[in-house]
Amino acid sequence: MTSIDPSHIASCAQLAMLLEVSATPKPGNIDRDHNYTDTRFEHFLASAVGVYPVLEKATHSKSGVGALIREAVIESGRWQKGGNTHFGAFILLIPLVMAAGRCEDRTCLKTQVQKVARETTVEDAVEFYRAFSAAKVNVKPVDDLSLGDIASFDKIKEQGLTLFNLMEISGSYDMIAEEWTNGFQKTFGCAASIQNKIKEHGINDAVVLTFMELLSNYKDTFIQTKFDDKKAEEVSMRSKSILQKGHIDEIKGEIHAFDEQLLKEGINPGSTADIIIAGLFVSFFEGMRF
Amino acid sequence: MTSIDPSHIASCAQLAMLLEVSATPKPGNIDRDHNYTDTRFEHFLASAVGVYPVLEKATHSKSGVGALIREAVIESGRWQKGGNTHFGAFILLIPLVMAAGRCEDRTCLKTQVQKVARETTVEDAVEFYRAFSAAKVNVKPVDDLSLGDIASFDKIKEQGLTLFNLMEISGSYDMIAEEWTNGFQKTFGCAASIQNKIKEHGINDAVVLTFMELLSNYKDTFIQTKFDDKKAEEVSMRSKSILQKGHIDEIKGEIHAFDEQLLKEGINPGSTADIIIAGLFVSFFEGMRF
Repeated sequence: MTSIDPSHIASCAQLAMLLEVSATPKPGNIDRDHNYTDTRFEHFLASAVGVYPVLEKATHSKSGVGALIREAVIESGRWQKGGNTHFGAFILLIPLVMAAGRCEDRTCLKTQVQKVARETTVEDAVEFYRAFSAAKVNVKPVDDLSLGDIASFDKIKEQGLTLFNLMEISGSYDMIAEEWTNGFQKTFGCAASIQNKIKEHGINDAVVLTFMELLSNYKDTFIQTKFDDKKAEEVSMRSKSILQKGHIDEIKGEIHAFDEQLLKEGINPGSTADIIIAGLFVSFFEGMRF
Repeated sequence: MTSIDPSHIASCAQLAMLLEVSATPKPGNIDRDHNYTDTRFEHFLASAVGVYPVLEKATHSKSGVGALIREAVIESGRWQKGGNTHFGAFILLIPLVMAAGRCEDRTCLKTQVQKVARETTVEDAVEFYRAFSAAKVNVKPVDDLSLGDIASFDKIKEQGLTLFNLMEISGSYDMIAEEWTNGFQKTFGCAASIQNKIKEHGINDAVVLTFMELLSNYKDTFIQTKFDDKKAEEVSMRSKSILQKGHIDEIKGEIHAFDEQLLKEGINPGSTADIIIAGLFVSFFEGMRF
């Protein structure tokens, strides 16, 4: 039994989704001031609203990570017509929310989320692939298991691959998958960074600065997949050089220019945004308010 | 028994709150691009997150409007430190959500919400006053019943005033109270306007245009109370003259200038924003998507 109210946990996750997409300027991504042609800021708000019941259900689910991720994708899509909004975020949020539901207090999240990840089954892997094709995400298929292909489902079953195993396979080139296998290291680092910055900078700029830090430290998977490793590296270098120039007030103009450039080139660091959502969730779960 | 999922109804209300505060430019009010000194856009997002469980509870509550409004104020405040965000909106949303919970389909809202309003009790009136002082709203007290004053609670009880009676007393000078006594006329008119505009204009501009229309047709109570009747009238006239100039693309510059002027003078049409939230709720409940 959890001692923390399920609706409280789900609300922490929902607020994380809302504040991530609102934070601006967040170079290359949708924010309150930037939309893509078919996907808009408002679609992300609606997605965060629609997924709440699934998040709440996840807090008292002992298993079924894959099915819950698929359900999250479906519910998110029932409330908006902007296409895929939060698929990557759900891959992190669902196990985190399930872990929070197992916690007796606010300190055991790190231990529990690793257990949730390791306890996944072959059925979770199959459901995850179904979620994948429902979300129609343009990412690299895990090894030679092509997505949405029934043969792949058979292959998963034949080889007895769990969802954790799939994440191990992808972990070398996918920063979201790597979170599953390295104990959600970037997520907890991100949470610490946001909590360190919120008092001085307020919630928006704490998120923007942490986003820039993540971008400068890690090559974004979404950029690597959509473009290549070199492009992701360039984006990291540029972020680092901007951050080195000083305080947020001094560099905000440069972050804006960087944002405009990435948007123009269609470079969206979507995986970094997913880590931000996960980090915000951890922060709210740990009691952060603003 | 309702045939509509409680979480669906609560989600409609939550999405209404998120999209109202996001819509920009919404002259004089907080939106995604404008904050006040102590209250920010993000506080409104957090308030919409925090109130969800109360909204869900309201869908299956047969009575207790006043207590639910108070609970909504308290929960909203537990998630953010920006002060009063949605008090006026809750006065409309709570009876609407309760009415939706009684509906067998999506067409009976208008009839049911009038019943919910008329069935309120003296206890609801007392709870409403408690909510009022919890929200610390700077509005005109109902007649000589001064707020937060225990003598007033006794007076309500002595005179046997229900919450509906209080709304009747305030209805002549308060557009939110008037909704209770005129069958939520502006709310349903607002819903029709948004639904008429969404296809051509998209969700943001449908809200902005409807906001301008409401402002031009009705003097905002919040402005009347904070300033005077003349100021509210001026704002209405200015809105009307801008709207008469043409299509949204042609007048957006003027709406922006109007917004900047109102923000500078501290004129915030808060009651009009509350009607927008109620109208958005009705629209989503009736099946609108974007």
